Amino acid sequence: MTRWKLLVEYDGRPYVGWQRQDNGPSVQQAIEDAIARFSGTAVTLHAAGRTDAGVHAYGQTAHFDIEKDVTARAVRDAINQHLRPQPIAVLTAEPVGPEFHARLSARQRGYLYRVVNRRAPLALGQGRAWHMHRPLDADAMHAAAQVLVGHHDFTSFRASQCQAKSPLKTLDRLDVLRDGEEIRIVARARSFLHHQVRNMVGTLALVGEGKWTADRLRAALDARDRSAAGPTAPPDGLYFTDVVY
Amino acid sequence: MTRWKLLVEYDGRPYVGWQRQDNGPSVQQAIEDAIARFSGTAVTLHAAGRTDAGVHAYGQTAHFDIEKDVTARAVRDAINQHLRPQPIAVLTAEPVGPEFHARLSARQRGYLYRVVNRRAPLALGQGRAWHMHRPLDADAMHAAAQVLVGHHDFTSFRASQCQAKSPLKTLDRLDVLRDGEEIRIVARARSFLHHQVRNMVGTLALVGEGKWTADRLRAALDARDRSAAGPTAPPDGLYFTDVVY
Repeated sequence: MTRWKLLVEYDGRPYVGWQRQDNGPSVQQAIEDAIARFSGTAVTLHAAGRTDAGVHAYGQTAHFDIEKDVTARAVRDAINQHLRPQPIAVLTAEPVGPEFHARLSARQRGYLYRVVNRRAPLALGQGRAWHMHRPLDADAMHAAAQVLVGHHDFTSFRASQCQAKSPLKTLDRLDVLRDGEEIRIVARARSFLHHQVRNMVGTLALVGEGKWTADRLRAALDARDRSAAGPTAPPDGLYFTDVVY
Repeated sequence: MTRWKLLVEYDGRPYVGWQRQDNGPSVQQAIEDAIARFSGTAVTLHAAGRTDAGVHAYGQTAHFDIEKDVTARAVRDAINQHLRPQPIAVLTAEPVGPEFHARLSARQRGYLYRVVNRRAPLALGQGRAWHMHRPLDADAMHAAAQVLVGHHDFTSFRASQCQAKSPLKTLDRLDVLRDGEEIRIVARARSFLHHQVRNMVGTLALVGEGKWTADRLRAALDARDRSAAGPTAPPDGLYFTDVVY
Protein backbone atom coordinates (compact mmCIF):
# COMPACT_ATOMS: atom_id res chain seq x y z
CA MET A 1 0.00 0.00 0.00
CA THR A 2 1.40 3.40 -0.96
CA ARG A 3 0.21 6.76 0.31
CA TRP A 4 0.21 9.47 -2.37
CA LYS A 5 0.31 13.22 -1.79
CA LEU A 6 -1.22 15.33 -4.56
CA LEU A 7 -0.78 19.05 -5.21
CA VAL A 8 -3.93 20.22 -6.98
CA GLU A 9 -4.98 23.34 -8.91
CA TYR A 10 -8.64 24.01 -9.74
CA ASP A 11 -11.12 26.58 -10.91
CA GLY A 12 -13.84 26.43 -8.25
CA ARG A 13 -16.66 27.81 -10.39
CA PRO A 14 -18.23 24.59 -11.73
CA TYR A 15 -18.17 22.86 -8.33
CA VAL A 16 -20.23 22.81 -5.14
CA GLY A 17 -16.88 22.96 -3.32
CA TRP A 18 -14.11 20.55 -2.47
CA GLN A 19 -16.21 18.11 -0.48
CA ARG A 20 -18.47 15.39 -1.91
CA GLN A 21 -22.09 16.52 -1.63
CA ASP A 22 -25.41 15.29 -2.96
CA ASN A 23 -26.34 18.60 -4.57
CA GLY A 24 -23.77 18.74 -7.36
CA PRO A 25 -20.28 18.00 -8.66
CA SER A 26 -17.41 18.39 -6.21
CA VAL A 27 -13.67 18.57 -6.76
CA GLN A 28 -13.17 15.64 -4.38
CA GLN A 29 -15.54 13.43 -6.33
CA ALA A 30 -13.98 14.37 -9.67
CA ILE A 31 -10.50 13.38 -8.50
CA GLU A 32 -11.68 10.26 -6.63
CA ASP A 33 -13.47 9.12 -9.79
CA ALA A 34 -10.33 9.74 -11.88
CA ILE A 35 -8.22 7.74 -9.41
CA ALA A 36 -10.76 4.90 -9.42
CA ARG A 37 -10.69 4.77 -13.22
CA PHE A 38 -6.91 4.51 -13.45
CA SER A 39 -6.34 2.29 -10.40
CA GLY A 40 -9.44 0.14 -10.50
CA THR A 41 -10.15 0.75 -6.81
CA ALA A 42 -12.37 3.18 -4.94
CA VAL A 43 -10.36 5.55 -2.74
CA THR A 44 -11.10 8.35 -0.30
CA LEU A 45 -9.19 11.59 -0.73
CA HIS A 46 -8.26 13.58 2.37
CA ALA A 47 -7.63 17.27 1.70
CA ALA A 48 -5.75 19.92 3.65
CA GLY A 49 -8.81 22.17 3.54
CA ARG A 50 -12.40 22.06 2.35
CA THR A 51 -12.92 24.95 -0.02
CA ASP A 52 -16.45 26.32 -0.55
CA ALA A 53 -18.34 26.51 -3.82
CA GLY A 54 -16.64 28.93 -6.23
CA VAL A 55 -13.36 29.06 -4.28
CA HIS A 56 -10.25 28.30 -6.32
CA ALA A 57 -6.96 26.56 -5.54
CA TYR A 58 -3.41 26.87 -6.80
CA GLY A 59 -2.08 24.44 -4.23
CA GLN A 60 -4.73 22.33 -2.51
CA THR A 61 -3.06 19.25 -1.07
CA ALA A 62 -4.68 15.83 -0.61
CA HIS A 63 -3.68 12.24 0.03
CA PHE A 64 -4.99 8.75 -0.74
CA ASP A 65 -3.77 5.14 -0.49
CA ILE A 66 -3.56 2.55 -3.29
CA GLU A 67 -1.98 -0.86 -3.70
CA LYS A 68 -0.92 -0.30 -7.30
CA ASP A 69 2.82 -0.12 -7.97
CA VAL A 70 3.31 2.95 -10.18
CA THR A 71 5.67 5.88 -10.65
CA ALA A 72 4.87 9.39 -9.43
CA ARG A 73 4.75 10.60 -13.00
CA ALA A 74 2.30 7.88 -13.99
CA VAL A 75 0.02 8.70 -11.05
CA ARG A 76 -0.05 12.41 -11.94
CA ASP A 77 -0.51 11.89 -15.68
CA ALA A 78 -3.14 9.15 -15.33
CA ILE A 79 -5.30 11.20 -12.95
CA ASN A 80 -5.01 14.25 -15.20
CA GLN A 81 -5.91 12.15 -18.22
CA HIS A 82 -9.12 11.00 -16.56
CA LEU A 83 -9.96 14.51 -15.28
CA ARG A 84 -10.06 16.02 -18.79
CA PRO A 85 -11.63 18.39 -19.72
CA GLN A 86 -12.48 19.51 -16.20
CA PRO A 87 -10.61 22.56 -14.82
CA ILE A 88 -8.75 20.47 -12.23
CA ALA A 89 -5.07 19.59 -12.58
CA VAL A 90 -2.76 17.47 -10.45
CA LEU A 91 0.48 19.47 -10.46
CA THR A 92 2.56 16.85 -8.66
CA ALA A 93 2.07 13.39 -7.13
CA GLU A 94 4.56 12.22 -4.52
CA PRO A 95 4.80 8.99 -2.49
CA VAL A 96 4.79 9.74 1.25
CA GLY A 97 5.01 7.72 4.44
CA PRO A 98 1.94 6.33 6.25
CA GLU A 99 2.36 9.00 8.95
CA PHE A 100 1.57 11.78 6.47
CA HIS A 101 -1.97 13.19 6.57
CA ALA A 102 -2.90 16.07 4.27
CA ARG A 103 -5.12 17.70 6.90
CA LEU A 104 -3.59 16.65 10.23
CA SER A 105 0.06 17.10 9.24
CA ALA A 106 -0.43 20.64 7.90
CA ARG A 107 1.58 23.23 9.81
CA GLN A 108 0.46 26.31 7.88
CA ARG A 109 -2.10 27.11 5.20
CA GLY A 110 -1.97 30.04 2.80
CA TYR A 111 -4.80 31.89 1.06
CA LEU A 112 -4.85 34.73 -1.45
CA TYR A 113 -7.87 36.98 -1.89
CA ARG A 114 -8.05 39.12 -5.04
CA VAL A 115 -10.11 42.30 -5.20
CA VAL A 116 -10.37 44.29 -8.44
CA ASN A 117 -11.01 47.88 -7.43
CA ARG A 118 -12.31 49.86 -10.39
CA ARG A 119 -15.47 51.41 -11.71
CA ALA A 120 -15.80 49.12 -14.74
CA PRO A 121 -17.20 45.61 -14.21
CA LEU A 122 -14.97 42.56 -14.63
CA ALA A 123 -14.44 40.92 -18.00
CA LEU A 124 -11.33 38.71 -17.85
CA GLY A 125 -11.67 38.60 -14.05
CA GLN A 126 -15.28 37.32 -13.92
CA GLY A 127 -15.55 34.67 -11.20
CA ARG A 128 -11.84 35.13 -10.40
CA ALA A 129 -11.92 38.23 -8.19
CA TRP A 130 -14.26 40.38 -6.11
CA HIS A 131 -15.29 43.51 -7.97
CA MET A 132 -15.41 46.54 -5.64
CA HIS A 133 -16.21 49.72 -7.52
CA ARG A 134 -15.73 52.25 -4.70
CA PRO A 135 -12.11 53.35 -4.14
CA LEU A 136 -10.45 51.34 -1.36
CA ASP A 137 -7.56 52.53 0.81
CA ALA A 138 -5.31 49.45 0.79
CA ASP A 139 -2.83 51.00 3.24
CA ALA A 140 -5.60 51.57 5.78
CA MET A 141 -6.80 47.98 5.21
CA HIS A 142 -3.29 46.64 5.79
CA ALA A 143 -2.81 48.68 8.98
CA ALA A 144 -6.19 47.56 10.37
CA ALA A 145 -5.52 43.94 9.37
CA GLN A 146 -2.65 43.81 11.88
CA VAL A 147 -5.28 43.97 14.65
CA LEU A 148 -6.33 40.46 13.62
CA VAL A 149 -2.83 38.96 13.48
CA GLY A 150 -1.94 36.78 16.51
CA HIS A 151 -3.82 34.41 18.82
CA HIS A 152 -7.48 35.41 19.15
CA ASP A 153 -11.02 34.17 19.59
CA PHE A 154 -12.27 34.59 15.99
CA THR A 155 -15.97 33.98 16.76
CA SER A 156 -16.84 37.28 15.04
CA PHE A 157 -15.38 35.96 11.78
CA ARG A 158 -16.73 32.41 11.98
CA ALA A 159 -19.59 31.00 9.90
CA SER A 160 -22.55 29.76 11.93
CA GLN A 161 -22.13 26.28 10.35
CA CYS A 162 -18.43 26.08 11.37
CA GLN A 163 -17.59 22.67 12.82
CA ALA A 164 -14.31 23.60 14.58
CA LYS A 165 -14.25 22.73 18.28
CA SER A 166 -12.68 26.02 19.30
CA PRO A 167 -12.89 29.56 17.87
CA LEU A 168 -9.32 30.19 19.06
CA LYS A 169 -6.86 30.45 16.16
CA THR A 170 -3.45 32.00 15.58
CA LEU A 171 -3.33 34.18 12.47
CA ASP A 172 0.32 34.33 11.36
CA ARG A 173 -0.03 36.92 8.65
CA LEU A 174 -2.66 39.16 7.03
CA ASP A 175 -1.17 41.47 4.41
CA VAL A 176 -3.04 43.84 2.10
CA LEU A 177 -1.15 45.15 -0.91
CA ARG A 178 -2.33 47.19 -3.89
CA ASP A 179 -0.91 46.53 -7.37
CA GLY A 180 -2.60 48.96 -9.75
CA GLU A 181 -6.35 48.32 -9.77
CA GLU A 182 -5.89 45.00 -7.94
CA ILE A 183 -5.74 44.55 -4.18
CA ARG A 184 -4.24 41.29 -2.93
CA ILE A 185 -4.86 40.02 0.58
CA VAL A 186 -2.61 37.23 1.83
CA ALA A 187 -3.65 35.26 4.92
CA ARG A 188 -1.56 32.56 6.60
CA ALA A 189 -2.32 30.43 9.68
CA ARG A 190 -2.01 26.86 10.89
CA SER A 191 -5.74 26.59 10.30
CA PHE A 192 -8.76 28.79 9.70
CA LEU A 193 -12.39 28.72 10.81
CA HIS A 194 -15.11 28.24 8.19
CA HIS A 195 -15.46 31.47 6.14
CA GLN A 196 -12.79 33.15 8.28
CA VAL A 197 -10.80 34.57 5.36
CA ARG A 198 -13.90 35.75 3.50
CA ASN A 199 -15.34 37.31 6.68
CA MET A 200 -12.05 39.09 7.43
CA VAL A 201 -11.88 40.38 3.83
CA GLY A 202 -15.51 41.54 3.91
CA THR A 203 -14.80 43.47 7.11
CA LEU A 204 -11.50 44.91 5.86
CA ALA A 205 -13.38 46.21 2.81
CA LEU A 206 -15.41 48.43 5.21
CA VAL A 207 -12.10 49.84 6.48
CA GLY A 208 -10.93 50.34 2.88
CA GLU A 209 -14.08 52.29 2.06
CA GLY A 210 -13.46 54.54 5.08
CA LYS A 211 -16.62 53.36 6.87
CA TRP A 212 -14.70 51.57 9.64
CA THR A 213 -11.56 52.41 11.63
CA ALA A 214 -8.99 49.93 12.94
CA ASP A 215 -10.49 50.53 16.40
CA ARG A 216 -13.90 49.46 15.18
CA LEU A 217 -12.31 46.32 13.75
CA ARG A 218 -10.70 45.60 17.11
CA ALA A 219 -14.06 46.09 18.84
CA ALA A 220 -15.66 43.67 16.36
CA LEU A 221 -13.01 41.05 17.15
CA ASP A 222 -13.45 41.59 20.89
CA ALA A 223 -17.24 41.28 20.63
CA ARG A 224 -16.97 37.54 19.78
CA ASP A 225 -20.21 37.88 17.87
CA ARG A 226 -20.54 37.25 14.12
CA SER A 227 -23.05 40.11 13.78
CA ALA A 228 -20.42 42.58 15.08
CA ALA A 229 -18.18 42.06 12.03
CA GLY A 230 -18.73 42.87 8.35
CA PRO A 231 -20.26 40.80 5.54
CA THR A 232 -18.80 37.67 3.96
CA ALA A 233 -16.78 38.47 0.84
CA PRO A 234 -17.81 36.43 -2.25
CA PRO A 235 -15.99 33.16 -3.02
CA ASP A 236 -14.85 34.40 -6.46
CA GLY A 237 -11.71 36.13 -5.17
CA LEU A 238 -10.47 33.37 -2.85
CA TYR A 239 -7.55 31.06 -3.76
CA PHE A 240 -6.14 28.30 -1.55
CA THR A 241 -2.48 28.81 -2.46
CA ASP A 242 -0.36 26.38 -0.45
CA VAL A 243 0.16 24.19 2.58
CA VAL A 244 3.34 23.95 4.62
CA TYR A 245 4.03 20.51 6.19
CA MET B 1 -22.16 64.89 -32.92
CA THR B 2 -19.51 63.60 -30.52
CA ARG B 3 -16.86 61.01 -31.26
CA TRP B 4 -16.21 58.65 -28.35
CA LYS B 5 -13.06 56.61 -27.75
CA LEU B 6 -13.57 53.43 -25.72
CA LEU B 7 -10.93 51.32 -23.95
CA VAL B 8 -12.30 47.76 -23.82
CA GLU B 9 -11.41 44.56 -21.95
CA TYR B 10 -12.88 41.21 -22.97
CA ASP B 11 -12.62 37.48 -22.61
CA GLY B 12 -12.53 36.24 -26.21
CA ARG B 13 -13.79 32.72 -25.53
CA PRO B 14 -17.54 33.17 -26.11
CA TYR B 15 -17.05 35.17 -29.32
CA VAL B 16 -16.32 34.53 -33.00
CA GLY B 17 -13.87 37.43 -32.71
CA TRP B 18 -14.06 41.20 -32.62
CA GLN B 19 -15.76 41.64 -35.98
CA ARG B 20 -19.46 41.21 -36.71
CA GLN B 21 -20.02 37.92 -38.48
CA ASP B 22 -23.02 35.84 -39.44
CA ASN B 23 -21.77 32.69 -37.73
CA GLY B 24 -21.99 33.76 -34.09
CA PRO B 25 -21.74 36.48 -31.45
CA SER B 26 -18.97 39.03 -31.86
CA VAL B 27 -17.54 41.57 -29.43
CA GLN B 28 -18.30 44.37 -31.90
CA GLN B 29 -21.96 43.41 -32.14
CA ALA B 30 -22.31 43.10 -28.36
CA ILE B 31 -20.97 46.62 -27.80
CA GLU B 32 -22.84 48.13 -30.76
CA ASP B 33 -26.07 46.64 -29.41
CA ALA B 34 -25.34 48.04 -25.93
CA ILE B 35 -24.69 51.50 -27.39
CA ALA B 36 -27.88 51.33 -29.46
CA ARG B 37 -29.91 50.43 -26.36
CA PHE B 38 -28.63 53.36 -24.30
CA SER B 39 -28.48 55.95 -27.09
CA GLY B 40 -31.45 54.94 -29.18
CA THR B 41 -29.39 55.01 -32.37
CA ALA B 42 -27.56 52.39 -34.38
CA VAL B 43 -23.82 53.03 -34.52
CA THR B 44 -20.78 51.44 -36.14
CA LEU B 45 -17.77 50.78 -33.93
CA HIS B 46 -14.30 51.10 -35.44
CA ALA B 47 -11.62 49.13 -33.59
CA ALA B 48 -7.84 49.45 -33.51
CA GLY B 49 -7.51 45.77 -34.36
CA ARG B 50 -9.73 42.82 -35.29
CA THR B 51 -9.01 40.05 -32.84
CA ASP B 52 -9.74 36.45 -33.84
CA ALA B 53 -12.08 34.01 -32.09
CA GLY B 54 -10.81 33.18 -28.61
CA VAL B 55 -8.31 36.07 -28.49
CA HIS B 56 -8.62 38.31 -25.42
CA ALA B 57 -8.11 42.03 -24.85
CA TYR B 58 -7.03 44.13 -21.93
CA GLY B 59 -6.98 47.32 -23.97
CA GLN B 60 -8.78 47.09 -27.31
CA THR B 61 -9.62 50.61 -28.46
CA ALA B 62 -12.63 51.59 -30.57
CA HIS B 63 -14.55 54.71 -31.55
CA PHE B 64 -18.10 55.64 -32.54
CA ASP B 65 -20.16 58.81 -33.08
CA ILE B 66 -23.43 59.77 -31.39
CA GLU B 67 -25.54 62.92 -31.18
CA LYS B 68 -26.51 62.39 -27.54
CA ASP B 69 -25.14 64.92 -25.03
CA VAL B 70 -23.78 62.81 -22.13
CA THR B 71 -20.83 62.68 -19.76
CA ALA B 72 -17.92 60.26 -20.23
CA ARG B 73 -18.89 58.47 -17.05
CA ALA B 74 -22.47 58.04 -18.23
CA VAL B 75 -21.32 56.62 -21.58
CA ARG B 76 -19.03 54.07 -19.89
CA ASP B 77 -21.55 53.04 -17.23
CA ALA B 78 -24.51 52.84 -19.61
CA ILE B 79 -22.68 50.63 -22.10
CA ASN B 80 -21.44 48.37 -19.29
CA GLN B 81 -24.94 48.17 -17.86
CA HIS B 82 -26.31 46.91 -21.18
CA LEU B 83 -23.38 44.50 -21.70
CA ARG B 84 -24.08 42.57 -18.49
CA PRO B 85 -23.47 39.69 -17.89
CA GLN B 86 -21.17 39.32 -20.89
CA PRO B 87 -17.40 39.25 -20.24
CA ILE B 88 -16.85 42.60 -21.96
CA ALA B 89 -16.14 45.79 -20.01
CA VAL B 90 -15.64 49.39 -21.14
CA LEU B 91 -12.79 50.59 -18.91
CA THR B 92 -12.94 54.22 -20.02
CA ALA B 93 -14.93 56.37 -22.44
CA GLU B 94 -13.42 59.64 -23.61
CA PRO B 95 -14.68 62.34 -26.02
CA VAL B 96 -12.21 62.88 -28.86
CA GLY B 97 -11.98 65.16 -31.89
CA PRO B 98 -13.38 64.17 -35.32
CA GLU B 99 -9.83 63.60 -36.60
CA PHE B 100 -9.36 60.64 -34.23
CA HIS B 101 -9.77 57.17 -35.75
CA ALA B 102 -9.19 54.08 -33.59
CA ARG B 103 -7.55 52.15 -36.43
CA LEU B 104 -5.99 54.83 -38.64
CA SER B 105 -4.60 57.02 -35.83
CA ALA B 106 -2.86 54.13 -34.04
CA ARG B 107 0.93 54.56 -33.85
CA GLN B 108 1.74 51.34 -32.03
CA ARG B 109 -0.14 48.21 -30.96
CA GLY B 110 0.87 45.88 -28.14
CA TYR B 111 0.16 42.17 -27.69
CA LEU B 112 0.98 39.73 -24.92
CA TYR B 113 1.14 35.98 -25.51
CA ARG B 114 1.04 33.70 -22.44
CA VAL B 115 2.46 30.17 -22.52
CA VAL B 116 2.18 27.91 -19.48
CA ASN B 117 5.11 25.51 -19.66
CA ARG B 118 4.53 22.55 -17.37
CA ARG B 119 3.66 18.90 -17.48
CA ALA B 120 0.26 19.23 -15.80
CA PRO B 121 -2.68 20.46 -17.90
CA LEU B 122 -4.23 23.88 -17.25
CA ALA B 123 -6.94 24.36 -14.66
CA LEU B 124 -7.20 28.07 -13.79
CA GLY B 125 -5.50 28.89 -17.09
CA GLN B 126 -7.91 27.01 -19.39
CA GLY B 127 -8.61 29.16 -22.46
CA ARG B 128 -6.29 31.85 -21.10
CA ALA B 129 -2.87 30.50 -22.10
CA TRP B 130 -1.18 28.00 -24.42
CA HIS B 131 -0.25 24.83 -22.60
CA MET B 132 3.17 23.52 -23.72
CA HIS B 133 4.25 20.48 -21.74
CA ARG B 134 7.77 20.04 -23.12
CA PRO B 135 10.42 22.24 -21.43
CA LEU B 136 11.04 25.45 -23.38
CA ASP B 137 14.26 27.47 -23.34
CA ALA B 138 12.93 31.02 -23.01
CA ASP B 139 16.37 32.59 -23.32
CA ALA B 140 16.94 30.86 -26.66
CA MET B 141 13.47 31.99 -27.78
CA HIS B 142 14.25 35.59 -26.81
CA ALA B 143 17.60 35.57 -28.61
CA ALA B 144 16.06 34.10 -31.78
CA ALA B 145 13.13 36.53 -31.61
CA GLN B 146 15.53 39.42 -32.20
CA VAL B 147 15.96 38.12 -35.78
CA LEU B 148 12.36 39.20 -36.42
CA VAL B 149 12.66 42.69 -34.91
CA GLY B 150 12.96 45.47 -37.49
CA HIS B 151 11.58 46.15 -40.98
CA HIS B 152 10.94 42.91 -42.86
CA ASP B 153 8.73 41.16 -45.37
CA PHE B 154 6.67 38.99 -42.98
CA THR B 155 5.04 36.80 -45.66
CA SER B 156 6.25 33.67 -43.81
CA PHE B 157 4.21 34.70 -40.76
CA ARG B 158 1.09 35.90 -42.58
CA ALA B 159 -2.24 34.07 -42.72
CA SER B 160 -3.40 33.18 -46.25
CA GLN B 161 -6.60 35.17 -45.67
CA CYS B 162 -4.65 38.32 -44.63
CA GLN B 163 -6.08 41.43 -46.31
CA ALA B 164 -3.11 43.77 -45.81
CA LYS B 165 -1.83 45.36 -49.04
CA SER B 166 1.81 44.79 -48.17
CA PRO B 167 3.63 42.08 -46.18
CA LEU B 168 6.22 44.69 -45.13
CA LYS B 169 5.96 45.58 -41.44
CA THR B 170 8.27 47.02 -38.80
CA LEU B 171 8.36 44.94 -35.63
CA ASP B 172 9.45 47.28 -32.81
CA ARG B 173 9.84 44.70 -30.08
CA LEU B 174 9.57 40.94 -29.51
CA ASP B 175 10.58 39.95 -25.99
CA VAL B 176 10.35 36.48 -24.44
CA LEU B 177 10.58 36.28 -20.66
CA ARG B 178 10.10 33.37 -18.29
CA ASP B 179 8.41 33.89 -14.90
CA GLY B 180 8.29 30.50 -13.18
CA GLU B 181 6.22 28.09 -15.25
CA GLU B 182 4.86 30.94 -17.39
CA ILE B 183 6.53 32.34 -20.50
CA ARG B 184 5.38 35.78 -21.63
CA ILE B 185 5.97 37.04 -25.14
CA VAL B 186 5.48 40.76 -25.77
CA ALA B 187 5.13 42.02 -29.34
CA ARG B 188 4.88 45.67 -30.36
CA ALA B 189 4.55 47.24 -33.82
CA ARG B 190 2.64 49.98 -35.60
CA SER B 191 0.55 47.20 -37.13
CA PHE B 192 0.61 43.45 -37.60
CA LEU B 193 -0.40 41.09 -40.40
CA HIS B 194 -3.26 38.62 -39.80
CA HIS B 195 -2.07 35.84 -37.43
CA GLN B 196 1.43 37.39 -37.35
CA VAL B 197 1.82 37.23 -33.57
CA ARG B 198 0.44 33.68 -33.32
CA ASN B 199 2.63 32.51 -36.24
CA MET B 200 5.73 34.08 -34.69
CA VAL B 201 4.93 32.47 -31.32
CA GLY B 202 4.29 29.07 -32.91
CA THR B 203 7.67 29.28 -34.64
CA LEU B 204 9.51 30.53 -31.55
CA ALA B 205 8.12 27.50 -29.68
CA LEU B 206 10.13 25.30 -32.07
CA VAL B 207 13.24 27.25 -31.03
CA GLY B 208 12.27 26.85 -27.37
CA GLU B 209 11.98 23.08 -27.79
CA GLY B 210 15.45 22.99 -29.32
CA LYS B 211 14.16 21.84 -32.73
CA TRP B 212 15.06 25.10 -34.47
CA THR B 213 18.04 27.47 -34.26
CA ALA B 214 17.96 31.25 -34.68
CA ASP B 215 19.54 30.70 -38.12
CA ARG B 216 16.68 28.48 -39.17
CA LEU B 217 14.26 31.19 -38.01
CA ARG B 218 16.15 33.74 -40.13
CA ALA B 219 15.97 31.42 -43.14
CA ALA B 220 12.21 31.01 -42.58
CA LEU B 221 11.79 34.81 -42.56
CA ASP B 222 13.92 35.16 -45.70
CA ALA B 223 11.94 32.44 -47.50
CA ARG B 224 8.84 34.71 -47.69
CA ASP B 225 6.73 31.57 -47.71
CA ARG B 226 4.19 30.68 -45.00
CA SER B 227 5.08 26.99 -45.24
CA ALA B 228 8.70 27.78 -44.27
CA ALA B 229 7.72 28.94 -40.77
CA GLY B 230 6.19 27.07 -37.83
CA PRO B 231 2.55 26.41 -36.89
CA THR B 232 0.02 28.99 -35.69
CA ALA B 233 -0.12 29.15 -31.88
CA PRO B 234 -3.67 28.80 -30.45
CA PRO B 235 -5.73 31.95 -29.77
CA ASP B 236 -6.07 31.12 -26.04
CA GLY B 237 -2.79 32.76 -25.01
CA LEU B 238 -3.13 35.99 -27.01
CA TYR B 239 -4.09 39.32 -25.40
CA PHE B 240 -4.41 42.66 -27.21
CA THR B 241 -2.96 44.83 -24.46
CA ASP B 242 -2.83 48.44 -25.66
CA VAL B 243 -2.70 50.98 -28.44
CA VAL B 244 -0.48 54.05 -28.54
CA TYR B 245 -1.95 57.06 -30.38
